[in-house]
Amino acid sequence: MAKTRKQPRPKAETPKGFRDYFGAEVTQRNDMLRAIAGVYHRYGFDALESSAVETVEALGKFLPDVDRPNEGVFAWQEDEADWLALRYDLTAPLARVFAQHRNDLPTPYRRFAMGPVWRNEKPGPGRFRQFYQCDADTVGSASMAADAEICAMLSDTLEAVGIARGDYVIRINNRKVLNGVMEVAGVLDPSDPDKFSHERGIVLRAIDKLDRLGPIGVRALLGEGRKDDSGDFTKGAGLSEKQIGILSGYIDSIAWSYEQVTSPIRDSGSGEWNEYILNQLERSVESSEEGNEGVSELRNIAKLVGAQGYGPDRIIIDPSVVRGLGYYTGPVYEAELTFEIFDEKGRKRQFGSVAGGGRYDDLVKRFTGQEVPATGISIGVDRLLAALREKGRIKAVAQGPVVVTVMDRDRMADYQAMVAELRNAGIRAEVYLGNPKNFGNQLKYADRRNSPVAIIEGGDEKERGVVQIKDLILGAQIAENATLEEWKERPSQFEVPRDQMLDKVREILAIHEIGQD
Amino acid sequence: MAKTRKQPRPKAETPKGFRDYFGAEVTQRNDMLRAIAGVYHRYGFDALESSAVETVEALGKFLPDVDRPNEGVFAWQEDEADWLALRYDLTAPLARVFAQHRNDLPTPYRRFAMGPVWRNEKPGPGRFRQFYQCDADTVGSASMAADAEICAMLSDTLEAVGIARGDYVIRINNRKVLNGVMEVAGVLDPSDPDKFSHERGIVLRAIDKLDRLGPIGVRALLGEGRKDDSGDFTKGAGLSEKQIGILSGYIDSIAWSYEQVTSPIRDSGSGEWNEYILNQLERSVESSEEGNEGVSELRNIAKLVGAQGYGPDRIIIDPSVVRGLGYYTGPVYEAELTFEIFDEKGRKRQFGSVAGGGRYDDLVKRFTGQEVPATGISIGVDRLLAALREKGRIKAVAQGPVVVTVMDRDRMADYQAMVAELRNAGIRAEVYLGNPKNFGNQLKYADRRNSPVAIIEGGDEKERGVVQIKDLILGAQIAENATLEEWKERPSQFEVPRDQMLDKVREILAIHEIGQD
Repeated sequence: MAKTRKQPRPKAETPKGFRDYFGAEVTQRNDMLRAIAGVYHRYGFDALESSAVETVEALGKFLPDVDRPNEGVFAWQEDEADWLALRYDLTAPLARVFAQHRNDLPTPYRRFAMGPVWRNEKPGPGRFRQFYQCDADTVGSASMAADAEICAMLSDTLEAVGIARGDYVIRINNRKVLNGVMEVAGVLDPSDPDKFSHERGIVLRAIDKLDRLGPIGVRALLGEGRKDDSGDFTKGAGLSEKQIGILSGYIDSIAWSYEQVTSPIRDSGSGEWNEYILNQLERSVESSEEGNEGVSELRNIAKLVGAQGYGPDRIIIDPSVVRGLGYYTGPVYEAELTFEIFDEKGRKRQFGSVAGGGRYDDLVKRFTGQEVPATGISIGVDRLLAALREKGRIKAVAQGPVVVTVMDRDRMADYQAMVAELRNAGIRAEVYLGNPKNFGNQLKYADRRNSPVAIIEGGDEKERGVVQIKDLILGAQIAENATLEEWKERPSQFEVPRDQMLDKVREILAIHEIGQD
Repeated sequence: MAKTRKQPRPKAETPKGFRDYFGAEVTQRNDMLRAIAGVYHRYGFDALESSAVETVEALGKFLPDVDRPNEGVFAWQEDEADWLALRYDLTAPLARVFAQHRNDLPTPYRRFAMGPVWRNEKPGPGRFRQFYQCDADTVGSASMAADAEICAMLSDTLEAVGIARGDYVIRINNRKVLNGVMEVAGVLDPSDPDKFSHERGIVLRAIDKLDRLGPIGVRALLGEGRKDDSGDFTKGAGLSEKQIGILSGYIDSIAWSYEQVTSPIRDSGSGEWNEYILNQLERSVESSEEGNEGVSELRNIAKLVGAQGYGPDRIIIDPSVVRGLGYYTGPVYEAELTFEIFDEKGRKRQFGSVAGGGRYDDLVKRFTGQEVPATGISIGVDRLLAALREKGRIKAVAQGPVVVTVMDRDRMADYQAMVAELRNAGIRAEVYLGNPKNFGNQLKYADRRNSPVAIIEGGDEKERGVVQIKDLILGAQIAENATLEEWKERPSQFEVPRDQMLDKVREILAIHEIGQD
């Protein structure tokens, strides 16, 4: 056998842009996924868990950053065979699954999926290369009722996980309306869809930056171009004054609408808001067939969600929604949290988007050649969790177990019997399994685990048939706040007969409102 | 912009060795993970979800197939930087996590983890390259109480997910005992651990194949070698007759013990079995220090699990457990399901292993240079699910939603209101969202979804203020079994006033014992 060479020690680090999740972070995410799945399931969606690994060929290139078509995914080549990659979302795999199994699946196929996705992007603060999504899609339905339902369900889901009504809004737009306005402005020719695609790309990206650049900056990008604060120049679409005028009217209405939508004063009772916006859009698209189809689809969705009682306080037509992904073909939606938080630089800002989706009628066609209409939503679970933590709706720290300390290492079996008794009663408990020599370390351990109770049974207690029970939560409160008098009145350690241990532990947990299984 | 070239359609296929999971397959696995996590949590373990992607350097090479050190993982290189890989188990990442965060984590660190792992192996029938594991480990405890606890918890876990007592056994061995026997046979020199490592490798692999080769085949591999049925020759360890004699005695006792352990007649009441085996092992290791340490550890574990009431009907000392992984340093354990199933060739065989683990004291040391004792278990969740399906303990098909059919596409809002009413009552329901033109397709869809109830409201019903409710389960039963007379007596379609729809649906679901949220 070859001699083992001394190698340098490996670094104990996650790869850049990846992280680990501990304790409550994990269980809270699982609880949230479970709550979301509960709503999706009640709406009739079936679970699907597709493989995390796909062929690069099947995945396709539908990441927002179209300028880097080979970037964005983690990919590798099998021994002289297919290129494989980690999925970057749950939609591309759904298209593959439906194309592969379409003869065995019901149509429409309604599925939900949840799990990690991976993006090979430059990591940033709070931006990770692995994160969770939780999607629901209806494949094989051209009906706007499918889109309306997705939006209603998204509203129910946000409330089910603890976002209060009024703290969120679901905004709906339609790609066809956008195309209609482009047609009117002469940057889209329905008889030759590829024409002007370069200019349209610039226009779309400019509109998507409206919240950062403002209407004046966007307008500059429609014309010659724009110099930013650093002096860098971005070339514009080079449109004529007339074209810019047409698009500007639309952009102003978007800017105005966005401000209204995210302000708390918007009308919450009636459908008047939607009616107002829809009429305005109708004027913007003039005689464009596609544009009018888009407005009519939006009208249909507004009617359906309204009939189910989802007013503009929850779901609203909003032309400022663009959505980065290129594959959307009709309605697009976005769920935004409207409460304010402080960002990493201490500035107030709205929390922003936690979910998005839309109609994509061409994804399955890639595989089969036949158009299959589809629509769906993706919830960014990690962002939603961050929002709930911001609002103080979930605590960051989990409750630790009752810790049975080890006073006499030869009586391990006795201590194991104690935890067995507690566990059988549904109480989280464990024996201290480190080196028991230093008793202080055992209490430090219990403290670090956020344990509510420690149990002590030394030789003396054993002889007298009793145990010592320390209320660690009360102990910590006393240590922090109490004067000497109060300390005397409220002992945090109790001696009870061994056969009353369980009852006393139960009593202490109940005082601190700690749930048992 | 470059013109898009016509490309051939991508194949709609998972990569080889990967698969998708649908409906009940997904929810049953989630339920099982939740049940296992419940037990682990009650035992005091905290959740950890480490990144699915690790640096190849941090992962190390601990896959069973030591002959192919660079194989076994899916790996790729970051742009001229680190090599990254998908985790192949949950233990190697735990060692990295503990080394990385050891100053912030309590010691002992007790964590559970669950999720997919990936193996770049040749796929076979029922063998996939992505599968779920569910682990619990105690890092930083040298106490045999930690090992005993893991085995007790594994027993509780199997029963919690539905494996009946008597249908499984947890077998414990100790690597040190094996080493002791090797020492006695002269293939291990305690003063030079590297010596004879080639021979020991052959011996270990031979013992691991005992169930396939039988004692005679194993003995051949200890000597010159063995010719298999196809005529291929495997070179042996080349041991002397005397060495083979010593090892043969041990191997015979393993073979005998294995037969006893997996037979239903083993003693279930007392610790006599363990005592008998332990005495036999004591004789086998003669004066080997390591061997005697191993026997003493096993004795300690047997005492602790016995004191907690886990008799040999659940946990048993069994020298036939070897476990493929090279990193184990002390006790090793395996959970085996003892009931018989028919394999793909129609032969009866025992279901076999569903979980395994052991003590590994050197994994963290790779990173830090300091030895950190650790022990833990990994449950193969997919195999355990397969076992429960074999036993008929879980059904393969999920219950579909109530389907509200669409008789009049202009009244979609009415139908949406119906499903909203059902959903608000906690009943899974949906409107048919496909093309409603062909009513037969709507009922076929409900059938395919395994729906219990379909609801029909045409123009006539609307006018009369009623709905038709079809009991699809009863309908299917009648279609299959009933004579004409019975059909008449037991209608499967009911006309009820619209405002009694919810009550009638509830009544039908209750008859068929279909749970609501």
